[in-house]
Parts: sequence; structure tokens; C-alpha cells
Amino acid sequence: MELEFLGTGAGVPARGRNVSSLALKMLDERNEIWLFDCGEGTQQQILQTAIRPRKVTKIFISHLHGDHLYGLPGFLSSRSNQGGIEPVDLYGPIGLKQYVQTSLKTTGTRLGYPLNFHELSGAGVIFADAGITVTTLPLDHRIACFGYRVVEADLPGELLVAKLRELQVPSGPIYGKLKAGQQVTLPDGRQLDGRDFVGPNKPGRIVTIISDTRQTPNILKLAEQADVLVHESTFSQAEARLAHQYFHSTSTQAAKVAQRAHCHQLLLTHISARYLGKGVHQLQSEAQHIFKATRVVNDFDIIPVPFAD
Amino acid sequence: MELEFLGTGAGVPARGRNVSSLALKMLDERNEIWLFDCGEGTQQQILQTAIRPRKVTKIFISHLHGDHLYGLPGFLSSRSNQGGIEPVDLYGPIGLKQYVQTSLKTTGTRLGYPLNFHELSGAGVIFADAGITVTTLPLDHRIACFGYRVVEADLPGELLVAKLRELQVPSGPIYGKLKAGQQVTLPDGRQLDGRDFVGPNKPGRIVTIISDTRQTPNILKLAEQADVLVHESTFSQAEARLAHQYFHSTSTQAAKVAQRAHCHQLLLTHISARYLGKGVHQLQSEAQHIFKATRVVNDFDIIPVPFAD
Repeated sequence: MELEFLGTGAGVPARGRNVSSLALKMLDERNEIWLFDCGEGTQQQILQTAIRPRKVTKIFISHLHGDHLYGLPGFLSSRSNQGGIEPVDLYGPIGLKQYVQTSLKTTGTRLGYPLNFHELSGAGVIFADAGITVTTLPLDHRIACFGYRVVEADLPGELLVAKLRELQVPSGPIYGKLKAGQQVTLPDGRQLDGRDFVGPNKPGRIVTIISDTRQTPNILKLAEQADVLVHESTFSQAEARLAHQYFHSTSTQAAKVAQRAHCHQLLLTHISARYLGKGVHQLQSEAQHIFKATRVVNDFDIIPVPFAD
Repeated sequence: MELEFLGTGAGVPARGRNVSSLALKMLDERNEIWLFDCGEGTQQQILQTAIRPRKVTKIFISHLHGDHLYGLPGFLSSRSNQGGIEPVDLYGPIGLKQYVQTSLKTTGTRLGYPLNFHELSGAGVIFADAGITVTTLPLDHRIACFGYRVVEADLPGELLVAKLRELQVPSGPIYGKLKAGQQVTLPDGRQLDGRDFVGPNKPGRIVTIISDTRQTPNILKLAEQADVLVHESTFSQAEARLAHQYFHSTSTQAAKVAQRAHCHQLLLTHISARYLGKGVHQLQSEAQHIFKATRVVNDFDIIPVPFAD
């Protein structure tokens, strides 16, 4: 599981920072990539990476501002041109479906795969399978905007091989059965219960993605104990009034969330073009003052999501 | 008057060739830039150039396929963000208005300037003022598609200074009046008619832009005597059947148009990603075999439009 940032700028594209898009790569875990937001030029950014569009199976749109949305029809079309045939699930605010359908209809585009629209109207679990649960809560932006919390299922504990060796249990297919928690009878007649030989579950990882928003208690709920919190940081603390006025956050506010929610790592994105060079360093250091494990990300940064110790 | 190519690829963006857009820069002539097509990422391409979005006053869309259209809402929004206040005229097939309006409405975008939509339904003059006339004719693509012919008004002839000096006419404000074709009386009583001292009109330049199309007689009409013919060249002659099947042209077909229409220069664009390196050279040389003044253009090429000798 790793994050690859495809666009880390705010509002309008700048040289070096394209508009918003983020890939959550789960190639080892489920051979899938999920996108969060899809600003104009996302497909061009992807050309610079190892990402294959046909591996993208879900796209979560935080809100319908153009810098998070305008790359979607082009990405979907190119995915089809490049041989994508698996369905794509699209999540986002009401209006997403009409926009995508109008764009595809206007351009006479027929995709080679189905689109499943999931328009969000409130809080709750929007996707769950054996491996992942995604929940959403509304944020506080000028228009409807949603934050996303991706929670990996706990992984089964490891087989306590040392304990088995101590009891002189010979290795072989029996180990697999014990790891699966089954009861087995050994050749010498002893009965073993797998549950006695498997360590505790390993907690799954949590990734929280907070796009354009003022501060609201829902952010804390989504970010609780996240291994990685991705949080917008359009302004520095000196511009807190501007941030409020434009329904955005400061890097300091993001750091306070990471601290209060007991996150492990904070990645700041959605960086305004007003912050270049030293300005970006300033954004980062004012956040680190509150929450040390903070980093301002750049386009094409790849950040692994580690298991908590 | 010069052309700056912002995207010279076909269908989907490739590294080094973005999807279609072309700027006709008339900064000296009228302090304006006109765009022809606006594929996704056009605003990002513009960031790499000296073009200021607020100078763009007209955008002509050839047809509503995504690789010619999907950059339009983002460009219009960023032009507003960057302080553009002058109106923009949009020309293109029926459906353009609904697409742009849906995109802007979905994203809650209010532009800081008016948009004037001119949806095209047939042939004719679609713009004319003292300096420029633009005419359009339908092409032959899978969906409605229009070619554009931009004709500059003839420039007044030059003042025949040598002839005036021969008659010992002193230079001064009198020269301006003569150049304007007025009658003047000299201090010594001689009467001169400006029309006798002004050379013949200098023909204005003609630029023709032929986007995605099979060959059709309308192309010849639009291209007649063009100083620069920009013509799509999606395929090489060896792929002529594919070109026909997909409603496109070959580089050889484009060269034959340039020859028959007595053009001065041919610029080939809309190059498929299948032609790289040597392939592009092949496209160019098979066209040059028929029409010597041919060039395959690249993204960011700037080509002046010279007056014919």
C-alpha cells in the first residue's frame, strides 16, 4: 500500500504542481489502484508514472470544483482506449453523474467498460469487502465536500513457529491448518487447536484523505489513529483569515488534527502557488512545530503506508 | 501573426505530444490570441509558453471529441482566476454550449467575463471585422466537424517615397495625408492626389486549419492559396484504409491538398502515438515528396505566418 501524488497544487495548475489527484496503490494487496480526485491533466501526469489506467477500479471525488474534477472524462476515455474493460466505481457528491454523462455524451464517447455511480448524500460506509472499508463524512467547504477514511481489515496473526518447535510438531501442511485456526490430530495422537498457535491479529492500516475544507469535528473522526493523514494545506497560519474566508485550512490546523487524532504521519497537499521555495518550507516547519511527522508533498512523491509498530 | 502549437497528438495524450490545441497569435496586429481546439491540459501547456490567457478572445472548436474539447472548462476558469475580464467568443458545433454550461454549473464556477456562444450549423462567414474574416465549411468526420479559414484584410500599399522625392515634395505631415489617399496642396501651389503616390494593396495573409477529417472537396475550398495550411495527418499513406475507416487523413492526402490549393506552406499535426522518431520523419518525407514546403510540427513549435512575396 502506497500513495502516489499526481497533483498537489490548489485551484489552478502551476508549473511543478498540477491540480488535485492522488493514487492509493494497493497492487500487492488487491492488484488495484484507487484515485482520489481527478483534476485536469491527471492522465498526463499518469504518463510520467508506472501507473496503468486499467488498474484503477475506483475513483473518489471529494467535491465538484474543477480542479478536482475536470480530468475525469479524459481519464475514463483514455482508460477505455488503452484496453480497460473492468468496471469503474465513481464516488462523489450529487451532480457527478450528470457531469460525467454529459461529457461523454457530448463527445460521443462509448466506454469499453461499465461505470457505477455512487452519489453521496451523507455520512457512512460507502464501500466494504473482506479487505477494505471506506467511510465518508461531510467536510465544510463552499460546496458539498467529502472526506474519506480507508481502513484495511486486520491481518491474521503470525503462526507461533517457536512454540510448535518446542512441542516438536513437525513442519508440513499441518502448519497451514493450524495457521487457519483449525484443530489437527498429530500422527502421535496429540490434538492441537490452531487458535493456541496463532499470535494476535495485526491491525490493518488506515489512510485518511481530507480535501478542501475549513476545520470541522468530522475531520477528527475521519482521522482517528490514521497511519497516514493526507490533509489540505492551502494557507499558512498567517493567512488563517483568508483560509476561513475561502473555506480552506492552514498547515497549523492540519497539524493540530494529526496530533489530536493520534495519527502517525501527516502529508500536506493542495499547496497554493503563493508558496514557493521558502514558503513551502515555512508551511512545513510551522506544522512540524506541532506535529513532527509532517511533510509537504510534491507531484510524483511516492509515500509507503507502513504498518504501525 | 504566428502559430504556436500547444498540442500536436491524436486521440490520447502521449509523452511529448499533448492533445489538440493551436494558438493563432496576432499580438502585433490586434493584441489578441485565438485558440483552435482546446484538449485536456491546454492550460498546463500554456504555462510553458509566453501566452497570457487573458489575451485569448476567441476559441474555435473543430468538433466535440474529448481530445479537442476537454481542456475548455479549465482554461476558461483559470482565465477568470487570472484576472481575465474581456468577453470570450466560442465557436463550434451544436452541443458546445450545453457542455460548457454543464461543466461550469456543476463546479459552481462563475466567470469574471461573459461567454458568447456561436454554435455552427453550416457553411459561411462566422466572424468579420475590418482586420479579419473567418469562414467555415463542414468537414467529413465521425461527428460534426468544421474547418476554419482565417483571412486577413489587405493592407494598404506603401507610400512611394522615391517618387515624391523626385518631385521634390518635402517630407512632413503631408506624407501621412498622401498615404491616406487624400488630395493636398503644396506651399508652392502644386496639387497632389494621394492615390498617385501609394503602391498597390498588399494581400492579407490566409491561415487554414483543417482538423480531424477524411478528404472532402470542402478542404480545397478552405485551403485555396493559404499562406499556411495546418492539416491533420493522423496516418501515413500505408495506413490509408485505417485513415478512411476512422474518418482521418494521411500525410500524403494533406500534401495533395496543399499542392492543388496552391498553398505556400503545409504544417502537419494530430500525429498518432504510433509514429515516433523515424515514423514521424517518414510522415514528413512522404508528404514532402508531393509538396516540398511541408513540416510535421511538435508541441511548442512557433511558426511565423509570412506575407507571400
